[in-house]
Amino acid sequence: MEDVDHLAFERNKAQFDVGEMKIVWAGSREGFELSDRISRLVASDPLFRKDDRVMLDRKELFKNTLRKAAHAWKRVIELRLNEQEAYKLRFFVDQPAFTDLHWGMFVPAIQGQGTDEQQQKWLPLAYRMQIIGCYAQTELGHGSNVQGLETTATFDPKTDEFVIHSPTLTSSKWWPGGLGKISTHAVVYARLITDGQDHGVHGFIVQLRSLDDHLPLRGITIGDIGMKFGNAAYNTMDNGVLTFDHVRIPRNQMLMRVSQVTREGKYVHSNVPRQLIYGTMVNVRQKIVADASVALSRAVCIATRYSAVRRQFGSHNGGLETQVIDYKTQQSRLFPLLASAYAFRFVGEWLEWLYTDVTERLQANDFSTLPEAHACTAGLKSLTTTATADGIEECRKLCGGHGYLCSSGLPELFAVYVPACTYEGDNTVLLLQVARHLMKTVSQLGTGNKPVGTTAYMTRLEQLMQYHCDVKKAEDWLKPNVVLQAFEVRAARMSVTCAQNLNKFSNPEEGKFFNRLLTYKLYEIVLVADLFSWYVMVERRVGMRSGFQELAADLVEAAIAHCQLIVVSKFIEKLQQDIPGKGVKQILQVLCSVYALFLLHKHLGDFISTGCIDPKQGSLAGEQLRNLYSQVRPNAIALVDAYNYTDHFLGSILGRYDGNVYPKLYEEAWKDPLNDSVVPDGFKEYIQPMLKQQLRNARL
Amino acid sequence: MEDVDHLAFERNKAQFDVGEMKIVWAGSREGFELSDRISRLVASDPLFRKDDRVMLDRKELFKNTLRKAAHAWKRVIELRLNEQEAYKLRFFVDQPAFTDLHWGMFVPAIQGQGTDEQQQKWLPLAYRMQIIGCYAQTELGHGSNVQGLETTATFDPKTDEFVIHSPTLTSSKWWPGGLGKISTHAVVYARLITDGQDHGVHGFIVQLRSLDDHLPLRGITIGDIGMKFGNAAYNTMDNGVLTFDHVRIPRNQMLMRVSQVTREGKYVHSNVPRQLIYGTMVNVRQKIVADASVALSRAVCIATRYSAVRRQFGSHNGGLETQVIDYKTQQSRLFPLLASAYAFRFVGEWLEWLYTDVTERLQANDFSTLPEAHACTAGLKSLTTTATADGIEECRKLCGGHGYLCSSGLPELFAVYVPACTYEGDNTVLLLQVARHLMKTVSQLGTGNKPVGTTAYMTRLEQLMQYHCDVKKAEDWLKPNVVLQAFEVRAARMSVTCAQNLNKFSNPEEGKFFNRLLTYKLYEIVLVADLFSWYVMVERRVGMRSGFQELAADLVEAAIAHCQLIVVSKFIEKLQQDIPGKGVKQILQVLCSVYALFLLHKHLGDFISTGCIDPKQGSLAGEQLRNLYSQVRPNAIALVDAYNYTDHFLGSILGRYDGNVYPKLYEEAWKDPLNDSVVPDGFKEYIQPMLKQQLRNARL
Repeated sequence: MEDVDHLAFERNKAQFDVGEMKIVWAGSREGFELSDRISRLVASDPLFRKDDRVMLDRKELFKNTLRKAAHAWKRVIELRLNEQEAYKLRFFVDQPAFTDLHWGMFVPAIQGQGTDEQQQKWLPLAYRMQIIGCYAQTELGHGSNVQGLETTATFDPKTDEFVIHSPTLTSSKWWPGGLGKISTHAVVYARLITDGQDHGVHGFIVQLRSLDDHLPLRGITIGDIGMKFGNAAYNTMDNGVLTFDHVRIPRNQMLMRVSQVTREGKYVHSNVPRQLIYGTMVNVRQKIVADASVALSRAVCIATRYSAVRRQFGSHNGGLETQVIDYKTQQSRLFPLLASAYAFRFVGEWLEWLYTDVTERLQANDFSTLPEAHACTAGLKSLTTTATADGIEECRKLCGGHGYLCSSGLPELFAVYVPACTYEGDNTVLLLQVARHLMKTVSQLGTGNKPVGTTAYMTRLEQLMQYHCDVKKAEDWLKPNVVLQAFEVRAARMSVTCAQNLNKFSNPEEGKFFNRLLTYKLYEIVLVADLFSWYVMVERRVGMRSGFQELAADLVEAAIAHCQLIVVSKFIEKLQQDIPGKGVKQILQVLCSVYALFLLHKHLGDFISTGCIDPKQGSLAGEQLRNLYSQVRPNAIALVDAYNYTDHFLGSILGRYDGNVYPKLYEEAWKDPLNDSVVPDGFKEYIQPMLKQQLRNARL
Repeated sequence: MEDVDHLAFERNKAQFDVGEMKIVWAGSREGFELSDRISRLVASDPLFRKDDRVMLDRKELFKNTLRKAAHAWKRVIELRLNEQEAYKLRFFVDQPAFTDLHWGMFVPAIQGQGTDEQQQKWLPLAYRMQIIGCYAQTELGHGSNVQGLETTATFDPKTDEFVIHSPTLTSSKWWPGGLGKISTHAVVYARLITDGQDHGVHGFIVQLRSLDDHLPLRGITIGDIGMKFGNAAYNTMDNGVLTFDHVRIPRNQMLMRVSQVTREGKYVHSNVPRQLIYGTMVNVRQKIVADASVALSRAVCIATRYSAVRRQFGSHNGGLETQVIDYKTQQSRLFPLLASAYAFRFVGEWLEWLYTDVTERLQANDFSTLPEAHACTAGLKSLTTTATADGIEECRKLCGGHGYLCSSGLPELFAVYVPACTYEGDNTVLLLQVARHLMKTVSQLGTGNKPVGTTAYMTRLEQLMQYHCDVKKAEDWLKPNVVLQAFEVRAARMSVTCAQNLNKFSNPEEGKFFNRLLTYKLYEIVLVADLFSWYVMVERRVGMRSGFQELAADLVEAAIAHCQLIVVSKFIEKLQQDIPGKGVKQILQVLCSVYALFLLHKHLGDFISTGCIDPKQGSLAGEQLRNLYSQVRPNAIALVDAYNYTDHFLGSILGRYDGNVYPKLYEEAWKDPLNDSVVPDGFKEYIQPMLKQQLRNARL
């Protein structure tokens, strides 16, 4: 931090204990201390500087990433960091690298899908990074539809091997991170074929490159798939393309925890419940939700601090101009995002608990909550990543012109974040999964199957269908129950409307199908590797004209309403806990109301047209929202300080802790390579002939 | 174009004459022929290739831009292209360059603000590019608030010169394109000071660099401000920083058409009506609206073609999977954007007419329509650029994972487009200007001042306040009048509500101010160089607590409602014209309904809560929208073909005319510099020691 704190006057305005809020944000005192310690460690290490990376060309950038990855691993060894600390270290280095896939996908795939024997063989190598692995699932032609993957793994009983092969161009593996240049091994997903029979997609451990000279093994073609969106951003990653020409691997490299191929080539299932594997999905997605709150809070932190530094208009007789954070138009765009970051943080925390709960149940062979947990995490992944991607760009716009400079940090933050909307389940496909679960839940009301978890409110459907909101004055909207009811009523009624409309669409044939569909257990249609849509079933069976397909856009909206309810309700639940620290709970209550009423205002059409509130009540909510912004205002800087991000992690001149924006922007400009020389390269060849009217004869 | 057309089966589905639609899109047969000819000229010239530019580092990229600019100018000379053709050539070269500012800002500034004498001196030099100019207005500390600029131009009567000076760090010129490395001259905006008196901001022609060696002149410091958002994108432009240390220029380099400084140092006004200059703003902004339709249509073209190529899910017994364009979720996101591109095209066309009309009136000293024209162009600039920026990103997401690759063209299109939301008036500030005009219009109803142009519907306010929509079945929403009325009613009622709420807020002091404010003529508070907000006045006079400020977010929403009405009404007006070609008018009618009903659905809360429609009617609109999507579907590819974009201009593998996506994506990948070597740079230093467990001793 600097000597002068240009934002000290803002920090003095805070009405709550920032130190305690840091603990709340981190989830626990230990969590705070861990993050604080590791983030400082990274920030103080010159090798981890990242302010120069947007100026590097692809090759330099990639080499820089390898260097950081190696240095990070070296530090892990030297400091004997444990797994959690090592994870945090990579997190704060904040540069996507092959190691993310090695630790985040390759290792967990073996842990989850490998037999004990396979784990004993491969995990120690991976833990020591004697091998580096990636996760080769997506192909050029297939992403969401995992069942459509074309790579084949054909068992050859003569040699006791699988032959891995890419039969078409579109079967080329395409996108896997770490694949293009670095990984020595991969978990490859391919159609298992034994004796001419296709058993669907399974995972196989395949060595890709020689451990001696790093050259691809025979029959394997690998490369990088090229530049991606943005400056630096994911261009630090070697997303790769991979084709196989009849590559042979030993039989024991199929991941055999759930299904096996015997020496004789028989395909058999073990007695391990398949559902165990679905827990992994819940885990991956709850991490994505946690990451969403981090990404959004970074952007919000930058935009909030800069909005307090930036002044424009409103000077009285040569005095200071108005801070842009004081404009209501700025507040009405920024503060809901500030509130969203906290909302996502808390729902992420709750998802962590949900994952633990699901895991424990699975181990006790209790699969009852799995479908609901799966739908819930799918929906929250979709909701939070979409809102975060949009929110980062909104924060960039809230910084005006200067937000367009890379030195604001926001362009890179956006570019590196947006793939979250597509990977691990396309956000629209995921919402359709949620909608399907909702339709099933509605259709089963009154039967023995009681809605559980986040759909439990459906048990009160009758009451919700009759409810009318009794808000009479703006302050009524501050009551948690009033807000909660409104969100429940809206979500329930939208689901019911969809269900009714689906019924209208159904012809006898489809009706039969619909009934049948509702009896499927969710995990029967969700794949191991997921990314799967319920479209498959719908379309295979009833073709394009189904009501599901026709009403898909409405179903998506109903799913969003349900997911927003979850976030609002978990925020409210959080506030029912004991939260220490002067003013901490109070300001969180303000943020909770901001989040809920902002959504209500944004989706006013839903709330009014479902008859849940009337226009007058909607307008009172808007009025209350304005009041709440005034309450957020003095606390805004402290609320983003509570994230406890170092200037290194933020990577933004506009978001500097000390608010010393202009001098540093000015300084930074001169570092651009274009400023290496006063007269630019190309002037003599191209500009001078133009100025001297000699272009006609110039060779360009 | 390729031999095989993978989209031929889609093109065969079209129900309208694509050739005729191309004329409609281009605006005229001549317009079409001009664009067609020049775009092919550029596409066939290897020097204008752009597929490699995302891989260049900043210096190479910049040099590449200089080369293209010189080559473009050479072609203009060789082919004796006229002004319009030369403009189109630069347009299709599609790489931001200093020439954009030279032709688009520097030359027009002299034309608009220079005396005849000044024009005779400077314009011939500029026309021949013997000097290259830029437009140096924005400073580090001031963008929107032009009146807050700090650079000074102090008249020194002793030497008959102005002394241009940067008194503070924040007074550094910051952002001007072409400034950083290339421009020899600039129109510099600075506070004119004579005899100790500050006369506000005026323009001055200042030479920046020597015409011999291109070095900055004495007292001038210039550089590039560094990397901006995205791959290539605006990094081809040398946006610059500039400070003056008491730089002297002759008195006759102040742009003196409207105000002069005499030899004695007296500040006087000429008899040229100031308003003439405001026409320029209308012109610049109507061009931005036209550009919005181009940018959005490019993105839509890419996403539509790729959505027809991409197949996912729904294969029956090994047959082809479903084209993603057949999914309703895809249609409900993509088709409104397709319709928007056409809507923006037509409103842009109308704005061209408006500009001509305003210009003619100004020349006849008729200023009556200027305020309305100004508000209208400001609002449409804001509306279309925001929708386009969001729309491009939506199109990118609609392309799934592959949209994240630079070779999709969408990342660069987004990054190069988004500054349009901030430059030439921040979009939120502009909407507040519109809102102010609306409040003034409402308050003057019943007085002699009749609303004109796009606010003319306000004359029917009484009727609009009583209206209730009589839609009874979904098809009723196809009637243009029904739609138009609904948009008028919504806009009018939102304005009236705001006006009423403003009254509630007003205390006696503020009430007085409000009345006073309403008597100001708009052009009195709009600056020459614009980018000005009405905040200035509001805040200067009544401070932060004004109702305007408090209700700013609502005012913005009312302004949006008004602007959407304009776009809808101009689309409807366009369809009242004679439009030749089989099926052309019919499909445009479908698009018009899609655009309007999509907006209605998106802003359902507005429509219902203003009592303009009821929930049932809202739901019928949604139903009709679904039907319309089915009518768009077979025409989708032909509708984007009608833009007549070359593959070169589109710059997207996903959007290729022939739909040959996968082989070309695969080919393109190998061109990445990372694929120059099989084993990447850095492997030996960083990865091998990791794999060999020798990291502890490695020097990284």
